[in-house]
Amino acid sequence: MKLYVLLPILHDEALVNVTRQEIASAVSPGTEFIVDSLEMGPASIETYLDEEVAAPWIVEKAIKADKDGYDAIIIDCMGDPAIHSVREAVRKPVVGPLMATTSIACNLGDKFSIVTVLKESVPLFKRKIREYGLEHRLASVRYVNVPVLELESRKEEVKNQLVEESIQAVKEGADTIILGCTGMIGMAKNMQRQLHVPVIDPGVAQVKYAEMLVSLGLVHSPNTYPNPRAKTRLIPSQMRPVQTRIE
Amino acid sequence: MKLYVLLPILHDEALVNVTRQEIASAVSPGTEFIVDSLEMGPASIETYLDEEVAAPWIVEKAIKADKDGYDAIIIDCMGDPAIHSVREAVRKPVVGPLMATTSIACNLGDKFSIVTVLKESVPLFKRKIREYGLEHRLASVRYVNVPVLELESRKEEVKNQLVEESIQAVKEGADTIILGCTGMIGMAKNMQRQLHVPVIDPGVAQVKYAEMLVSLGLVHSPNTYPNPRAKTRLIPSQMRPVQTRIE
Amino acid sequence: MKLYVLLPILHDEALVNVTRQEIASAVSPGTEFIVDSLEMGPASIETYLDEEVAAPWIVEKAIKADKDGYDAIIIDCMGDPAIHSVREAVRKPVVGPLMATTSIACNLGDKFSIVTVLKESVPLFKRKIREYGLEHRLASVRYVNVPVLELESRKEEVKNQLVEESIQAVKEGADTIILGCTGMIGMAKNMQRQLHVPVIDPGVAQVKYAEMLVSLGLVHSPNTYPNPRAKTRLIPSQMRPVQTRIE
Amino acid sequence: MKLYVLLPILHDEALVNVTRQEIASAVSPGTEFIVDSLEMGPASIETYLDEEVAAPWIVEKAIKADKDGYDAIIIDCMGDPAIHSVREAVRKPVVGPLMATTSIACNLGDKFSIVTVLKESVPLFKRKIREYGLEHRLASVRYVNVPVLELESRKEEVKNQLVEESIQAVKEGADTIILGCTGMIGMAKNMQRQLHVPVIDPGVAQVKYAEMLVSLGLVHSPNTYPNPRAKTRLIPSQMRPVQTRIE
Amino acid sequence: MKLYVLLPILHDEALVNVTRQEIASAVSPGTEFIVDSLEMGPASIETYLDEEVAAPWIVEKAIKADKDGYDAIIIDCMGDPAIHSVREAVRKPVVGPLMATTSIACNLGDKFSIVTVLKESVPLFKRKIREYGLEHRLASVRYVNVPVLELESRKEEVKNQLVEESIQAVKEGADTIILGCTGMIGMAKNMQRQLHVPVIDPGVAQVKYAEMLVSLGLVHSPNTYPNPRAKTRLIPSQMRPVQTRIE
Amino acid sequence: MKLYVLLPILHDEALVNVTRQEIASAVSPGTEFIVDSLEMGPASIETYLDEEVAAPWIVEKAIKADKDGYDAIIIDCMGDPAIHSVREAVRKPVVGPLMATTSIACNLGDKFSIVTVLKESVPLFKRKIREYGLEHRLASVRYVNVPVLELESRKEEVKNQLVEESIQAVKEGADTIILGCTGMIGMAKNMQRQLHVPVIDPGVAQVKYAEMLVSLGLVHSPNTYPNPRAKTRLIPSQMRPVQTRIE
Repeated sequence: MKLYVLLPILHDEALVNVTRQEIASAVSPGTEFIVDSLEMGPASIETYLDEEVAAPWIVEKAIKADKDGYDAIIIDCMGDPAIHSVREAVRKPVVGPLMATTSIACNLGDKFSIVTVLKESVPLFKRKIREYGLEHRLASVRYVNVPVLELESRKEEVKNQLVEESIQAVKEGADTIILGCTGMIGMAKNMQRQLHVPVIDPGVAQVKYAEMLVSLGLVHSPNTYPNPRAKTRLIPSQMRPVQTRIE
Repeated sequence: MKLYVLLPILHDEALVNVTRQEIASAVSPGTEFIVDSLEMGPASIETYLDEEVAAPWIVEKAIKADKDGYDAIIIDCMGDPAIHSVREAVRKPVVGPLMATTSIACNLGDKFSIVTVLKESVPLFKRKIREYGLEHRLASVRYVNVPVLELESRKEEVKNQLVEESIQAVKEGADTIILGCTGMIGMAKNMQRQLHVPVIDPGVAQVKYAEMLVSLGLVHSPNTYPNPRAKTRLIPSQMRPVQTRIE
Repeated sequence: MKLYVLLPILHDEALVNVTRQEIASAVSPGTEFIVDSLEMGPASIETYLDEEVAAPWIVEKAIKADKDGYDAIIIDCMGDPAIHSVREAVRKPVVGPLMATTSIACNLGDKFSIVTVLKESVPLFKRKIREYGLEHRLASVRYVNVPVLELESRKEEVKNQLVEESIQAVKEGADTIILGCTGMIGMAKNMQRQLHVPVIDPGVAQVKYAEMLVSLGLVHSPNTYPNPRAKTRLIPSQMRPVQTRIE
Repeated sequence: MKLYVLLPILHDEALVNVTRQEIASAVSPGTEFIVDSLEMGPASIETYLDEEVAAPWIVEKAIKADKDGYDAIIIDCMGDPAIHSVREAVRKPVVGPLMATTSIACNLGDKFSIVTVLKESVPLFKRKIREYGLEHRLASVRYVNVPVLELESRKEEVKNQLVEESIQAVKEGADTIILGCTGMIGMAKNMQRQLHVPVIDPGVAQVKYAEMLVSLGLVHSPNTYPNPRAKTRLIPSQMRPVQTRIE
Repeated sequence: MKLYVLLPILHDEALVNVTRQEIASAVSPGTEFIVDSLEMGPASIETYLDEEVAAPWIVEKAIKADKDGYDAIIIDCMGDPAIHSVREAVRKPVVGPLMATTSIACNLGDKFSIVTVLKESVPLFKRKIREYGLEHRLASVRYVNVPVLELESRKEEVKNQLVEESIQAVKEGADTIILGCTGMIGMAKNMQRQLHVPVIDPGVAQVKYAEMLVSLGLVHSPNTYPNPRAKTRLIPSQMRPVQTRIE
Repeated sequence: MKLYVLLPILHDEALVNVTRQEIASAVSPGTEFIVDSLEMGPASIETYLDEEVAAPWIVEKAIKADKDGYDAIIIDCMGDPAIHSVREAVRKPVVGPLMATTSIACNLGDKFSIVTVLKESVPLFKRKIREYGLEHRLASVRYVNVPVLELESRKEEVKNQLVEESIQAVKEGADTIILGCTGMIGMAKNMQRQLHVPVIDPGVAQVKYAEMLVSLGLVHSPNTYPNPRAKTRLIPSQMRPVQTRIE
């Protein structure tokens, strides 16, 4: 089995490395994988704007991975950016960690909380969980107040803050905690021991979910994700990057 | 008042012209407007893939329109593509016709149906209406089976099919009909006379909704649509179009 | 365009005057209007009892306004008293400020709060919002603890209390504030500046909503609001009991 | 125990008589009751308009019954007209047959249907059941197409049509049938035998529900139904307009 | 009328006695009853495990009571253990106090809270109320922290704690309080006086509910509770394992 | 990894054998498993009665499997009988195929249908899916009209009927089909080819789900599934009644 794991942001050497290690430790014997990232798009994904600025390149990457014969595509970002588009374009399992982990959480307890990176990421999670039909299972969305690209360098702070926010989440009714960024690597196990409730690590869970779907021979339904018809769609490929700063 | 109306697809002279006429007939005295379209993106929007392939360019256009001093931005497409991103980036009224017309429909009756273009567009509407929290008000989504870019040339067929599908929708419990594409221009009034239920024309409704919000001094909440922080976001600007066909 | 604005309570000179000024400042050029009130019914509307004691006279007034050729009827009270009855009886746009403002709020953010007059008015709002299918969008209903008829004379207290309660509402998750009484005139703009979230003034919003519906040629659906059949309905009119047949 | 049963329509000798017989057969030993009707208001209740035209007189009657020492008030009409107002005004059990029977139906099965009188009554039931928070338990609302005041004279037709419509309702998923008018007297038992599903007769059920609440010492909550404060409320009484203060 | 009241736990002389007294004080003149308990199963019911360990014996007892000619079966435990099974097996009214009291609470106010025995009982109530489709009416589930079998011996503590927790529940939005254990006998009336909101005593309410259903000739729907077909079902009876066929 | 697979019915040699083969073909390399069944309880599970008659023995078996060191427990029956009890008693992954497959279906499409064995099994599925909070994702529950114990002997009929019913389910809006009995072995793959929508085989899916949870180190939350306290619970074991204390 060959998994295509896309970090849907501009290449960041450190993040790619820890992601590669994490996934290597998660895959079953016999599963191969590649970790890729984008040449165009945002440096990190923290709001809708980032997601939609990344979207065309995610689609393009996924279409290529499909042609290259990968068995499943993992969009390695908790916002599940472009997941519906990719599922329209590709007839292989396409795993988004938000959809996968929230559905697992519903097998572990009644209510879950997500602890994510920033305050401005909160509305995105709330809206997507409503879109996924799980609003009634969500206890709260909380945040550690550390941007994606500083998660590694401020690791101790992140660990402490995750525990702190999770304790609040449990008080708000959460039975299960979901880490709200696939960049929060290697932290779930310890938290689980401290908190005495399940803590789901999306980076690992998305891999096992993809393996499960491939083993079961299950792919998203064409009735929900119909094949787009052929038409002109202009997207620039292999061109000169122009840096745009949106403030 | 100056409105920026974006047809979020590749420039199509005929469609731009009828859109311009329709909007000219809809605006209040004293309202100016421009109709713009994209240099990059899809020829038309019929599924998620089209929306997300259009997204970065919609954001870019909207940011420019904001800087150019327009008072409101209308994303002239019933899928409301990139609406959340644009609202994060721009602190002026941003009107999506799906959100506007479905909220109007809830003021006119208990349940509405949408009659859109193609079968493959149906899941997009169902999911977005769930995301908008109005799933319980939706009677059905039906379609005329004519692609966006053939709506003008097959006008008589479209008119007949719209009536036919709307009659079915009323049987399924719809009290109100919403035309499911802003390209279905100039058809609502006659339908309303024939069907004896309200028929909402999104092309006109989006304009009046934008005028209303501007008059009321109301803009989307920063708590729901937070400002994205500054970061590197690479999107190619004014580059050589490479034509990609996704089948 | 001619709007019929009904303050559905016993005539109160001061309230009629400020209402007339507010609406004059809100209407578009070319829109005429009249502000009317009741000869029978309650001095003010603060609970269901008040609404239902006002109901027959609201219906009677609306039927007359329809015959007098007004283009739309505005029931100028946040409880939307008798709105369903009036819509059954009159085939012109009938605007209730609660229905109009809550649907606008859903275009501005995820959750809204209403800040109304009295504690005993709270259950009415909660139930009507459930009836309108928007319970999942309501953050809270709060109150300033000032009766309707003292809103003008205790204006400074009301202003301060509105800000105070709105701050609490935002803490409870509201993205948007709706003033919970059409008698809270001229307060929204300042609040919006202080609170940094949208604040909807129902007195102004109901007027723009009525203008929008008239422009769009949209009237409530007869499938939801069927015409009542002719029958004997005894209601005393102008203090002289007469038999009225409504068809 | 003394029950006040209000047929909230203009006096109709025949209907009062059959109602009196029905209730006499339903009450427990020791329960006394009176059947009253209105001097003002509609000849029958079939839409919202009828309900709200009846509302002030229902409130007035209920307040008097309370003062006269009745132990519970039954608003003998399936639309539960003025129920919230009466509960605000009276601190005794106030039973509406729609609220009572739908809650009983939820103890007997998963989904219920209501078979009522006329097509134009359907939206009223749908909206009230949404207001009561039971929309997800409603299979359908159907009708026999006979006005309230012809139910007795067209009895055989009504019986047949009730069975016919109930069979359709069961096909639509109903486990339980609720007769949609308290004027459909003496029909439920036979229907139950024919249909093999529970059939609830609201005329009888409302009486047993009132007896149960009185026995249990339970009255609606003042937190949901607060006492209205004293104020001027003008309603004409006995054809002579007088000023009534309700406290 | 003859009621079969099953305390679905191992025989406890004290509890049976107070239950018998309570029910004697609740029944209408002419109603006979028996209070029975189990020879197998749990000493008390506080979580799902207890319920399901009691289930087969509850079914067995109910089938026997049906054959013995009782008119209704009351499962005298707030978890409604085995209610669906018993309803499948028995075509007489089967009353569970949770289903009965929550449906009564919805006739008294908008939101109710349950105050039960132990922390570990809370998830059971939350899940069952979701299963019953009333999640949106539940304000909270609270507990007095006293096990079922100590309710009588620690009566004063229980009374105080019930008031304490109910006050919190009202602050959380409850309009009505439901005692969360049928063993909390004789406490509701005083609480109601202190709290000024309705307090439902399940031990009494279940009896009146059963009497009401019997009077109305209403039994749960066979479409929701179908008759199980005959098959081998081995359950040990009276300590001697025998093969029982339930048809 | 060692999985304990419990067919929660009386031992049936043929069914155990095909189950063993199916699971052998599904497990990953290195996963061991045992297939067990009950000495007490029902011959098959088709309604609530069957489930609850099986419940104590399922709990007993699961507790023993936990002590014997199995890593996960699979309750191999689509009704998920006793799942909450077992999760209270055992702190290892406990997989119910209904919960697992419905959550997978929500990752593949918007709506799913279940095709189960008998008409009388339908209400059980509807209620449990409501309990699991997924009612809004359920298109329909249909059945092949063949009892569990005849699924093998009437295999061709079952296959044809499954396709027939699934075609109807897709017409009713299902994007994904779930086989409604773990005894429908080896049929999903062919159906998927014929129907062009995902078809989930619960027998296989439950195994992969258990493996996934074990790999991820995730167990149900103690906040949702609290440990029952020690008390007397009498259940007869191995036909000799003994007193069992579960802690």
